[in-house]
Amino acid sequence: MTLDDLPTPCLVLDVAVLTRNLALMQRAIARHPGVVLRPHMKTAKSRDVAALAAPDGGPITVSTLAEAAYFAEGWRDQIYAVGITPQKLDQVAALNAQGADIKVITDDIGMARLIATHPGGVRALVEVDVGEHRGGVPPADALPIAQAIGSRLAGLFTHGGHSYAGRDAATMERIAEAERAGVTRAAEMLRDAGLRPQIVSLGSSPTALHAKHLDGVTEVRAGVYMFGDLFQAQLGTHPQDDIAVTVLASVIGRRPAQGTILLDSGGLALSKDRSTQAAPKDYGFGLVLDMDARASFGEAIIIRTHQEHGEVSPGPMQLRVGDRVRVAPNHTCMTVAAHERYHVVDGSREVIAVWNRVNGW
Amino acid sequence: MTLDDLPTPCLVLDVAVLTRNLALMQRAIARHPGVVLRPHMKTAKSRDVAALAAPDGGPITVSTLAEAAYFAEGWRDQIYAVGITPQKLDQVAALNAQGADIKVITDDIGMARLIATHPGGVRALVEVDVGEHRGGVPPADALPIAQAIGSRLAGLFTHGGHSYAGRDAATMERIAEAERAGVTRAAEMLRDAGLRPQIVSLGSSPTALHAKHLDGVTEVRAGVYMFGDLFQAQLGTHPQDDIAVTVLASVIGRRPAQGTILLDSGGLALSKDRSTQAAPKDYGFGLVLDMDARASFGEAIIIRTHQEHGEVSPGPMQLRVGDRVRVAPNHTCMTVAAHERYHVVDGSREVIAVWNRVNGW
Repeated sequence: MTLDDLPTPCLVLDVAVLTRNLALMQRAIARHPGVVLRPHMKTAKSRDVAALAAPDGGPITVSTLAEAAYFAEGWRDQIYAVGITPQKLDQVAALNAQGADIKVITDDIGMARLIATHPGGVRALVEVDVGEHRGGVPPADALPIAQAIGSRLAGLFTHGGHSYAGRDAATMERIAEAERAGVTRAAEMLRDAGLRPQIVSLGSSPTALHAKHLDGVTEVRAGVYMFGDLFQAQLGTHPQDDIAVTVLASVIGRRPAQGTILLDSGGLALSKDRSTQAAPKDYGFGLVLDMDARASFGEAIIIRTHQEHGEVSPGPMQLRVGDRVRVAPNHTCMTVAAHERYHVVDGSREVIAVWNRVNGW
Repeated sequence: MTLDDLPTPCLVLDVAVLTRNLALMQRAIARHPGVVLRPHMKTAKSRDVAALAAPDGGPITVSTLAEAAYFAEGWRDQIYAVGITPQKLDQVAALNAQGADIKVITDDIGMARLIATHPGGVRALVEVDVGEHRGGVPPADALPIAQAIGSRLAGLFTHGGHSYAGRDAATMERIAEAERAGVTRAAEMLRDAGLRPQIVSLGSSPTALHAKHLDGVTEVRAGVYMFGDLFQAQLGTHPQDDIAVTVLASVIGRRPAQGTILLDSGGLALSKDRSTQAAPKDYGFGLVLDMDARASFGEAIIIRTHQEHGEVSPGPMQLRVGDRVRVAPNHTCMTVAAHERYHVVDGSREVIAVWNRVNGW
């Protein structure tokens, strides 16, 4: 079977590119002796990808309890990296009772007290804010929460997600250092108070690659680096050619007078994400590539999406209805989430495998 | 079971509101004797909803072949309302061979010739453009395509999707009339040439409600009216209180200093759709309602989304971690697509049923 036989729209995953991206991150982490990579499976959500990104059941990060359950058998050591609630603490405890070792995060004193007394014995990390201002307390405020967690304290956790606003290597290095300095400062304060934060965890794909040193850190989390996208390429996470996932689409209409074509990949197949709107180069809802994933149609991008229609301008008017293209995504995490499986290729058009994903919550 | 027992995030469908919205559209269509409503199932994608919106196996519209197959048993008479390709024509023929009666659309002369000679005998409508400039040929250019389809011609098809840019009833009426006039003009030209377009099909939720008359039209398609959303409310499709679907979410963090709270409904649970950006009132990524779906938190909207985090500002700071809210969607078609099922309520918090959806392609 080749890409010409697949129903469209669907996801294509090039394992040759994936392997390159994984090696790049592994080399980046290997610069820091003693630091472990805990890949974030929120993007790929696939056991087959986890087998390559976190071999030998290595530690992983998850973003939903559906992922936690799906990965639990092969990957016991997990951090569920979204602020825990009382109800979800019960769910995590139930998964751990079946053999998983899922740790949770919190920045809330009330939750910390609940974690301390929960019969499930779930361990937790205190979430620290190092500048993103999404979740987490300032490093100086981590101690009371850690004390409330008591003997269930697993460590400290932060995410330098404001790196996504960076546009050059110097800025990325600066944010990576702020991420490291913030979380290790909190760790020092905990140690000064007699606590023992075993895990000191940080990460985002850009900061993981740009960190000069990671003294005091035990592990790095990153996810989108596996697949990459048009936005991450502009952040310098990977070369533009190293986007591992594309959406296979068919031409369903042509408007020569407008110079546009219509694809059967719309807002559902591509997502409505507009990450590149704030990037130096705006790719609309995705860049249109040929069937070998080369940019041979120049600047052809998806300028408008409807639910099942994607409008391409300037349209490669040599294409006819039924011809196929591959669309590189703006934000791969959002694009892949609408699909149930990956059609895997290895640098050619031959489909060598189908890999499943776990969607939902 | 009540909404307090469900894992979050998840979809809540209030069947009381759904029933009101269905009745509103049925009354609007009943103003036009001889005109049939062909509900578009692209939003709900649920047999349980179809049983209410298209009772007795009435005609429906679908946007994917996954929907076509899923609905085929109960609803034979379908239009697949996205431009057909050669490969998908084979798939439709296979479904029809099993008992369905799925009609396809095209605006392409090459496809028209393929349809004419395809062994499956699939019938087709010519797609006409009445001002949206997405798919379709101008009304004056429909004849050669209809002639190429030959004996498989089922009729004419158009979608006044540019009604979504309208902001008042007078504009909606004008676009509705342009939609009607365009497709019926094409029908006249076909009849003058001796062809017999049996179906003359048009529609969008706003034009379906605002059309003054539908002379020459045989059927109206509409979909989003069933559930509604913050964008459609501003188009006048339904009152703001009549949004049938909300996303149930839990508070996962609080930032009193910023005056914000974090929910576990992010870009995946809500979608990245920003329809209301172009509307008079911008609701960010959704409006935060209380557990009875009332706007008792004032102007609290989702101002920022990450994959699994939704940031609410101004945050209802009385809420604690684990407390629950319901989020009204910007664009319901996009929001519901990330979810596999509806948790059905009937004006209260009690969950009376779980209805499945068909996602993917």
